[in-house]
Amino acid sequence: MRNLQINNKNIKTLVEKYQKIRLLTKIRAVLEWDLNVCLPEKAAVLRGEQSSFIAEELYKLWTEKEFLENLERAKAKQEHLSKEEKAVLRFFVWAGNVNFKVPKEIILEKTKTTSEAFIVWRKAKQENKFADFLPILKKIIDLELIIAKYLGFEKNPYDALLNTFEPNLTFEDYANYFKILKPEIGKLLANIKKSPRYQKNTALLKKGLEFRTDHQRQMSLFILRKMGYDLKAGRLDTSAHPITFDIDRTDTRITSWYHESDFRKSYAATLHEGGHALYGQGVNEVFDNTPLENTLSLGIHESQSRFWENIVGKTPAFLKFLTPILQAFHPDQLGEIGEETIIRLLNDISPGPIRVEADEITYNLHILLRFEIENDLINRQLDPEDLPRVWKTKTEELLQVKIKNDREGVLQDVHWSMGAFGYFPSYTLGNLYAAQIAFKMKKELPFEELLSKGELGTVLSWLRENIHRYGSLYRPDELILKVTGEPLNPGYFLDYLKEKYSAIYAV
Amino acid sequence: MRNLQINNKNIKTLVEKYQKIRLLTKIRAVLEWDLNVCLPEKAAVLRGEQSSFIAEELYKLWTEKEFLENLERAKAKQEHLSKEEKAVLRFFVWAGNVNFKVPKEIILEKTKTTSEAFIVWRKAKQENKFADFLPILKKIIDLELIIAKYLGFEKNPYDALLNTFEPNLTFEDYANYFKILKPEIGKLLANIKKSPRYQKNTALLKKGLEFRTDHQRQMSLFILRKMGYDLKAGRLDTSAHPITFDIDRTDTRITSWYHESDFRKSYAATLHEGGHALYGQGVNEVFDNTPLENTLSLGIHESQSRFWENIVGKTPAFLKFLTPILQAFHPDQLGEIGEETIIRLLNDISPGPIRVEADEITYNLHILLRFEIENDLINRQLDPEDLPRVWKTKTEELLQVKIKNDREGVLQDVHWSMGAFGYFPSYTLGNLYAAQIAFKMKKELPFEELLSKGELGTVLSWLRENIHRYGSLYRPDELILKVTGEPLNPGYFLDYLKEKYSAIYAV
Repeated sequence: MRNLQINNKNIKTLVEKYQKIRLLTKIRAVLEWDLNVCLPEKAAVLRGEQSSFIAEELYKLWTEKEFLENLERAKAKQEHLSKEEKAVLRFFVWAGNVNFKVPKEIILEKTKTTSEAFIVWRKAKQENKFADFLPILKKIIDLELIIAKYLGFEKNPYDALLNTFEPNLTFEDYANYFKILKPEIGKLLANIKKSPRYQKNTALLKKGLEFRTDHQRQMSLFILRKMGYDLKAGRLDTSAHPITFDIDRTDTRITSWYHESDFRKSYAATLHEGGHALYGQGVNEVFDNTPLENTLSLGIHESQSRFWENIVGKTPAFLKFLTPILQAFHPDQLGEIGEETIIRLLNDISPGPIRVEADEITYNLHILLRFEIENDLINRQLDPEDLPRVWKTKTEELLQVKIKNDREGVLQDVHWSMGAFGYFPSYTLGNLYAAQIAFKMKKELPFEELLSKGELGTVLSWLRENIHRYGSLYRPDELILKVTGEPLNPGYFLDYLKEKYSAIYAV
Repeated sequence: MRNLQINNKNIKTLVEKYQKIRLLTKIRAVLEWDLNVCLPEKAAVLRGEQSSFIAEELYKLWTEKEFLENLERAKAKQEHLSKEEKAVLRFFVWAGNVNFKVPKEIILEKTKTTSEAFIVWRKAKQENKFADFLPILKKIIDLELIIAKYLGFEKNPYDALLNTFEPNLTFEDYANYFKILKPEIGKLLANIKKSPRYQKNTALLKKGLEFRTDHQRQMSLFILRKMGYDLKAGRLDTSAHPITFDIDRTDTRITSWYHESDFRKSYAATLHEGGHALYGQGVNEVFDNTPLENTLSLGIHESQSRFWENIVGKTPAFLKFLTPILQAFHPDQLGEIGEETIIRLLNDISPGPIRVEADEITYNLHILLRFEIENDLINRQLDPEDLPRVWKTKTEELLQVKIKNDREGVLQDVHWSMGAFGYFPSYTLGNLYAAQIAFKMKKELPFEELLSKGELGTVLSWLRENIHRYGSLYRPDELILKVTGEPLNPGYFLDYLKEKYSAIYAV
């Protein structure tokens, strides 16, 4: 195995010092996987202690005096760095920033508060009592604002939080994307609503069908193998919510979920998490043991999951290939249904209150809603007490959907209880990246033809070659420019939606 | 939750410093579980790095100057210590000894050598080539001798190694037990061989039967629940060899294995590992966060697993209770077989070459063989090159069994490749402890009656009360004396064997 050549002394020292951080971070990732997939209920307290211990050790390593001095020296002498060395330095500046600018007490306070908040949120959601979640939510917002101040920002504290998930993108950038997306998505949706097919797709599936979960799992494994997911460098397990653990390129584990009532949930989840996992498995091994082995950003990660879930998995050409296999696994349920119906079932556009159940088009309106609310909360322009009302009003305005209660409204998502303010926008960002990447790919590959034959290996090779293998070598904006020849342009996503859904809805 | 009262300042400081060791040790245990049960093949290298990292950090913590100084101070001032404080100190002296008397380079050398040796051994066993394993085995023996010298011993270097698994027992102690066991076991075996039933038991099961592995697993879960194993503080998984991971009383995970050809393997394995796990789960929570929360020794641990596997699981009274349930799970395979046959099937005495397949009686002869050989190897009285020959001769002498090849001879066990010299004798020690404990229990509980009704809860309560809850509070010899009123006496084991097998074999 060839290793990355690093000549600069300062960078070399940083990478050496990084080894402990690297191993401890990967150990933490294994424990997080275990927490989600395996941990016995009564071991929750112990796991909390184990996690806090690792968090403290990592904080020490990131803030070690010698490490910081080295980082300063490296920053001061950047002139003769190679492209790779510059990327390593950029990683340390960014990750270091996220990891050590905030005082330890605040980080530990956040860890403690959010562990508690998760339990409080889960109960409040179950019992539909926003008032029970409100006090700890206020505390988390206060903490997020403090953290934003430590991280630093120019205009908007929300920018600091956004930056921890996607480097270099600000509130204004996202707002500009949404300014383009919102009216166009509105128009597309209005058109679809005029179609005689609107809100009739789900009815194509008989009520009360039961899809054997073991067959759904086998179907998931079939698709993962088709995609090129390496099960010798990963696993497929089951968990309450599908998730990917990108521990290492040799250990990228995913989970899916299996609902007896509808095969589509596991189908979408497996393709989505599989997409994340392919990215993790695909980084060039030459970057092993350096920070460049890490995948680039949440937005680019989400572009990969969305690409496989939607642009591959829900494209008519691929669904035509898949129909006989789906029918073989679920003969009584899908045997009598043709490929056109499968296509409509998997591309059902139907505005609803729940983000995770949303279709490809309205999904982004759910994100817009959260993006605006988060910005207002962090800028103290919205009193958290008003959240239920504001959530309802905005949902009606954006989606023309009436919300029955807070459980399907403001309490639906786990993110705020985890203190993950600034996370949501990267979902839409992923959609935008994915469509622009797909546009470029389609110029170079016979995309539809490959999909219609189930030949996903060629698609994966293209992604490996153009995106995965680079790990953290480029900035997200550099990567998109390099791959597609232009900066991020939401037009590709809109074109993709219009073309696809005009055909499916015959509008 | 009440916490253990510690007043002595030195002990208090030691326990505080122990918290990091404790968490890191438990993190390592989770990673070991993951390695055995979940780890993707390609992540083996990464896991090696993660484990070495933790090993180094633990070494640092155990050998930290301040910690050692504190330990010396505590050792110097023992007069006013409480029973609990003395036990804490004893733990640190013993564990510290095992963990820091050997220089780091030697420990790392052993870690490296044994990782490699495991792969070499596995291949050599597959290919039946002892010569391929010999060079690295020699290296391991050399390392073990070096380690023994660092650990210190009075007469025999093997004592130092034995002591790392069972404190305070020497070669001479074990040799004395075997001196009693060997002739008596020989006599019992000779008697059994005269029985018309000898070597006819296995024939009671039709050839070519297939026992559904999912039903074997369900049966395992049924038995574990009956035993009182808390599945909210543990898990049952599948692995290549059954094993218990005693991470914490809230997280004690076991594995079993399922062979289609014979239900007895999973039955025995589940009871055995379940017995280990009950011990781990049963330590008094007042010892949480102190070293007393650890189970006591390998020998005591093995007494618990053997107790459940043999003294509960293979006792006719319990097998009578279990027969209808076994029949319900495997109707075509066991439906026509009566309880007497089930009893004979599970108590089949049949000397063979393989230790892990050995019955309750001949098992100890396999251990005696290894015990003598290990002692000779560590004392340089046996050239490793002669091992195949010596193994064959001794097997013939002890078991009257001819060995066909090294795969079923000297290469059969993994232990030496792991550098676990001194481990084997604790298996027999466990049998001896278990029988003596059972003798006492039977005086206080209507044991047979409870077993015949499947009421294992009362049996567990007795073990909890008398053994499990004490964690590491007593020394093994103290515990046995406290529980049974006398020091370890192999006579109880012999009496147990004679009584049980005279009945089953009608001799």
